[in-house]
Amino acid sequence: MGSAALASSASPTASPPLPARRVRVHKYGGTSVGDLDRIRKVAARIQRVVEAGERVAVTVSAMGRATDELIATARELHPRPSRRELDMLMATGEQVSIALLAMALQHLGVRARSLTGAQAGFLTDGTHGGARILRVDPAPLLRALEEVDVCVIAGFQGVDAAGQITTLGRGGSDTTAVAVAAALGVDTCEIFTDTDGVYTTDPHLIPSARRLEVVDYEEMLELAALGAQVLHPRSVWYGRRYGVTLHVRSSFDFRPGTLVRGLAREEAHMETDRPVTGVALDMEHARIDLLGVPDEPGVAARIFGALGDAGVSADMIIQGVRGAADSRQQMAFTVPRDRADEAMEAMTPLMDGLGGRAELDLGVAKLSIVGIAIGSAPGIAGRMFEAVAAAGANIEMIATSEVRVSVVIPAALAVEALRHVHAAFGLERDESA
Amino acid sequence: MGSAALASSASPTASPPLPARRVRVHKYGGTSVGDLDRIRKVAARIQRVVEAGERVAVTVSAMGRATDELIATARELHPRPSRRELDMLMATGEQVSIALLAMALQHLGVRARSLTGAQAGFLTDGTHGGARILRVDPAPLLRALEEVDVCVIAGFQGVDAAGQITTLGRGGSDTTAVAVAAALGVDTCEIFTDTDGVYTTDPHLIPSARRLEVVDYEEMLELAALGAQVLHPRSVWYGRRYGVTLHVRSSFDFRPGTLVRGLAREEAHMETDRPVTGVALDMEHARIDLLGVPDEPGVAARIFGALGDAGVSADMIIQGVRGAADSRQQMAFTVPRDRADEAMEAMTPLMDGLGGRAELDLGVAKLSIVGIAIGSAPGIAGRMFEAVAAAGANIEMIATSEVRVSVVIPAALAVEALRHVHAAFGLERDESA
Repeated sequence: MGSAALASSASPTASPPLPARRVRVHKYGGTSVGDLDRIRKVAARIQRVVEAGERVAVTVSAMGRATDELIATARELHPRPSRRELDMLMATGEQVSIALLAMALQHLGVRARSLTGAQAGFLTDGTHGGARILRVDPAPLLRALEEVDVCVIAGFQGVDAAGQITTLGRGGSDTTAVAVAAALGVDTCEIFTDTDGVYTTDPHLIPSARRLEVVDYEEMLELAALGAQVLHPRSVWYGRRYGVTLHVRSSFDFRPGTLVRGLAREEAHMETDRPVTGVALDMEHARIDLLGVPDEPGVAARIFGALGDAGVSADMIIQGVRGAADSRQQMAFTVPRDRADEAMEAMTPLMDGLGGRAELDLGVAKLSIVGIAIGSAPGIAGRMFEAVAAAGANIEMIATSEVRVSVVIPAALAVEALRHVHAAFGLERDESA
Repeated sequence: MGSAALASSASPTASPPLPARRVRVHKYGGTSVGDLDRIRKVAARIQRVVEAGERVAVTVSAMGRATDELIATARELHPRPSRRELDMLMATGEQVSIALLAMALQHLGVRARSLTGAQAGFLTDGTHGGARILRVDPAPLLRALEEVDVCVIAGFQGVDAAGQITTLGRGGSDTTAVAVAAALGVDTCEIFTDTDGVYTTDPHLIPSARRLEVVDYEEMLELAALGAQVLHPRSVWYGRRYGVTLHVRSSFDFRPGTLVRGLAREEAHMETDRPVTGVALDMEHARIDLLGVPDEPGVAARIFGALGDAGVSADMIIQGVRGAADSRQQMAFTVPRDRADEAMEAMTPLMDGLGGRAELDLGVAKLSIVGIAIGSAPGIAGRMFEAVAAAGANIEMIATSEVRVSVVIPAALAVEALRHVHAAFGLERDESA
């Protein structure tokens, strides 16, 4: 697991091809490389793998809060720094980590080399702050892994066709790591983090949350998209697309964590009394209400067109007629909280032009249940709404899919509602076991 | 001065060519961008130039002590970090500065864009930590200066043919700026710094030092090479080679500073009573003594070959027979202090093999007088040695060239010797004027 044979090279020299050696793909997040001591520990961990005869392609994030600090510095100079310049700035965070980890490895006698996203062959589109990986050229990584035992790759970043530095958006280092595994043909990407796996819900909020041994991509995609901090959804999407198993595990011990891979439906249906795999709480969204929207064809297209032009994706959307006597209606949607300003700047002039107005509500939370059996198990949504009501929370918006049910509720009651929903579906750890 | 017409582009679009606008080339050192307030001041200064109808290609160094801090961090992980990884790490310093300055400019409404060394077309050789610029492709800069009014270029860095990030070595940002001017065909490069020009010697050490209005490239090359901190020698070499005048001036006011350009000999000889232009003190060298060197052909070649293999250049070299009864001799040379460890690691095994030994002396200083008339004015060296003796300092080594005389003396007496030499050649500011 976590390994694959490295194809012998098309070396231009006449020397015999290197013996094929297995490559493991690791990823360490910001907490795991948060200070020099932790970087040394990561280096020691990788050294063990190398001493066992394998090579490692390791992706790292920026150290600790480095990215946040860079953003805060930028905001001191410009209230809304250009995303291109922000990418230029933020990319330095990972560049520092990779150089330091390579040095720590070299100090242990491990042959290591750092690579920026561009150097590692990461070509992205030009969407600064949230770029998509278009292609990963495996050649630079394969070449590096012939010359050294460990290549240390900057997560979260790439370069577009015009040579501009781009970042993949928050959590993008997971995506980088999975893309590295896919490019190298390695079947598992080991994501080392400060938790030991994926839980039924955030164990910091609900201590009785249970660790899952295996989660389907589909479920994990929903959990990740809905605010489970442990994995970035794009990394899961990438894993599913390229058949890479994500192994989410602790960087502090050697025990196995949670495998994220494709599950057969039968496997998933085994526990029929647990149709819900996890409950996710997302506090990172804001709600925008559009009041007095003319009830005319094409208005919604203009609204979401303008939002798209501003680079913001709406998440949940509801629409309802305000009153019978009025030909105007209201509409509401949620957007990522850190894009709320851009969204309001796009909506305000548009709504002025339409004779309505836009209002921003930062006091909302999104609570979701996820499970690949939800779509085929009746009564699940109703049980969730009951549990939310029992917590005293009013449901403001609802959205459903085959594998999840989400509700928007007041942020102040969110954790209490999470507790009720988590218990209602029997997700707590079995203390008697 | 400091400007040139920007040739209209070979634009692939059918739109009419932009009107040719003059481009100024600026460079701001680490002190000038030492904190966010100073970055704002630099931005405001550049804004004035843009509002006057010109464009600016500005090179910046890393903020304040950022580079030193990165190196210190690296050394915590590895006593002698690999130069490749150190370059990877250090390059982030300038990348942070350029992004922040671009943001500060944008906040003032100035159209600006940051460019790393690689993005700005700086191709270097692969000598990490001290790379040479092989070529600057002007196309990316010209293209950027069509699209924005200011491009902010990371000093000190480039990329080699294999795509590795390189740095030009300490002070390399000056070289970057001069290379930018040369690539754009701009006749003057304005180097903004925390002093208002080039002085007859370091005014922090000798308060009566006088500011020079104009210095010849040749003199400045010697002064820079000999430790005048104001300009990096390679930048002066670059300026001479490409005919770019360097204007060293204060970043705190708008007065002119010192011009470094080609001087006709007649101009230089105007003041016959002042054959010495400046006195430089360099505390950044160390002396290595080789004791018991066999007096055989080829030994010196082996010694300096080994030093070269270690990537260290010897500066002053002396050689002398120790005693008549012995067929062994001693040899001594100076090396940059920050390369002393590498030099000793190369020399120690070599001298062991030769039956001698190497000793390191960090307590030395190099004092030099510089002037393009020195080679043709008799008695200058003697006057210098007298002044050094008057300060009580013993001269350990001597080296001369057409335009300078250098002596190695004990570091403890260096400033006192500097004071005597500076006075002996009448270089003090004329207080009565």
